[in-house]
Amino acid sequence: MSEDRKEAKGTSLSRRQMLAGAGAIATGMAISRFGGVLTGDAFAKGGPTEKWPWPYVKLDPAKTAEICYNEWYRVFCGCAVINSVFSQLREKIGEPYKSFPVDAFVFLEGGQVGWGTICGSPAGANIVANLIIGPRIAGSPVGHHIASDIMQWYSEAALPVYHPKKPRIKDRIITTTSNSPLCHISVGKWMKASGHPLKSAQRKDRCARVAASTAYRLVELLNAWKEGDYESTSDFSCSKEHGITGQFNCMECHGDNVPEPPTGKS
Amino acid sequence: MSEDRKEAKGTSLSRRQMLAGAGAIATGMAISRFGGVLTGDAFAKGGPTEKWPWPYVKLDPAKTAEICYNEWYRVFCGCAVINSVFSQLREKIGEPYKSFPVDAFVFLEGGQVGWGTICGSPAGANIVANLIIGPRIAGSPVGHHIASDIMQWYSEAALPVYHPKKPRIKDRIITTTSNSPLCHISVGKWMKASGHPLKSAQRKDRCARVAASTAYRLVELLNAWKEGDYESTSDFSCSKEHGITGQFNCMECHGDNVPEPPTGKS
Repeated sequence: MSEDRKEAKGTSLSRRQMLAGAGAIATGMAISRFGGVLTGDAFAKGGPTEKWPWPYVKLDPAKTAEICYNEWYRVFCGCAVINSVFSQLREKIGEPYKSFPVDAFVFLEGGQVGWGTICGSPAGANIVANLIIGPRIAGSPVGHHIASDIMQWYSEAALPVYHPKKPRIKDRIITTTSNSPLCHISVGKWMKASGHPLKSAQRKDRCARVAASTAYRLVELLNAWKEGDYESTSDFSCSKEHGITGQFNCMECHGDNVPEPPTGKS
Repeated sequence: MSEDRKEAKGTSLSRRQMLAGAGAIATGMAISRFGGVLTGDAFAKGGPTEKWPWPYVKLDPAKTAEICYNEWYRVFCGCAVINSVFSQLREKIGEPYKSFPVDAFVFLEGGQVGWGTICGSPAGANIVANLIIGPRIAGSPVGHHIASDIMQWYSEAALPVYHPKKPRIKDRIITTTSNSPLCHISVGKWMKASGHPLKSAQRKDRCARVAASTAYRLVELLNAWKEGDYESTSDFSCSKEHGITGQFNCMECHGDNVPEPPTGKS
C-alpha cells in the first residue's frame, strides 16, 4: 500500500457517514457526489427498463468466471464481464437481460478502443452493477458503491486471481498489482514484470484471466447484495479527500510534486 | 500538439490500411485489435437488440448539445451525453431506444464514480456510437472508429466548445486543452487554469458544457455516417505504434524516461 493510500484511509468518510448521506435519496433528493443537490421533479419519466432493481438470482462465481474467461476470446474484457453475468440471467430470468445489447460493448477493449483508459474489466463490472441495482439517483447507492469496491479491489489485487479450468496457455501466468484501474498501467506493469509483449498469447490469456477474476469478484458482491448482507469494502473518495476526481496513489504519476487543487466553493 | 504526438502521426496506419483490415470482418472473420483472429462460429446468437445498425435519423447537433447541457444537471456527464441522443430517438423512432436503460449510466460521473478515469463525456459518446452502429465484430468498424475520433477530438479541443443558450453561470468559462481523455487530467488542468475548485458552480457548468460539446461532435459524426460520407479523423493507434494500449502523449506522465515495452510475439 502506498504512503498516500495510507493517508487517504485516515481521512476518508466512514461507511456509516456514506450511508447516512445516501438515505436522503429515499426522501426524494439525490446528493451529487461532488456537492450539488438534485430535486425529485427534475427526474425524467424513464423507459420500461428504467425500474430498479432488475430481477436477480444468485450466480456461481466460479462458473461465471469460467464463462468470462472463454468469452474474452470472443468479445474481450469489458463485454466478457458483462456477458458472463447476463448470459446466465438471460437463461434464468429472461427480460430485461435478453434485450440488453451486450455485444455493443466490445469497444471497452484495451481501455476503450485501445486508448488505455479504464480497463474494460472494471468498466464492464460497473455497468453490470449499475444496470442491475440501478443508479444512485433512482433510490439505492449500492450499484455506485459496488463500482467503487471493484475499482479498489482491482487496483490492490495481485491479478489475475482466477485460474481457468481449461487454460489456453499452460505457462505459469505471473501476477502483478496495478495500483490503478487503468488498462495502460495494469497491462504495462504486467508486461514489464513478465517480459511478454502486448501481442503475445500469454498477455492475452493474462487479460482473459483478469476479466474472469473481476467477474468472480463482481458476482460475490452481487450475491451479498441479494442476500442483504452487502457492505462496501471501498473507503476512498478522492474528491472528498483531495478536492479532485482521481485514484489513491497521487505520487506514482506526480512524484513528490503533487499539485494542490483550488479549494473552497467558487 | 506534443512532440511524441507528432512522431506518432508519422508512423500511424493510414485510413486506407485500417479499412482494408476491417474488410475482413464482412467475410466472417474479426481481427482482434491486438493481433488475434476470431472465427465466425465463435459468435453468440445474440438478443433481439443485437442486430446492427439500429435505426437512426439525423439529429440537430445544437439541439442535442442543449439537451445534454440541461441533462448534466440531472444525470451528469456520461449519462447526459447518452440521453441527449437517445431521448430524441425514443421520440422519433421508439424501440430499441425506449428499452435502453440510459439512467443506469449515472455512474460514469467523475471518471467512473469519481475515480478520475475516462471522462464520462467520451465514455457516453463511445457507448452511443457502438450501440447505434454496433461493435466491430458485428460487421462494421465505424462505431469503433467514431469512439477513437471522439477520444482524439476531446483530447485536442479547447473545451468547452459549446456555449449554452441559457447558461446557468453567466461568468466567462475559460477553455483548456486536456491532451487526454481522462477526467482527472481534463478537470485538473481546467481547475488549475481557472482557479475554481471541484465543488464550484463554475466547474460544474464547465463540465456540463464539455458534455454538451461532446454530444454536438458525436451527432456530427453520426450524421456523417448516416449520410454515407463518414471518414475517420483519428490517426492514432498506441498498440501499433508503441506496443501498448495508451494515449499519444507518453512524456506528459513519463517525462524523458518513457519505458520500452517488450516486443515480438511471445
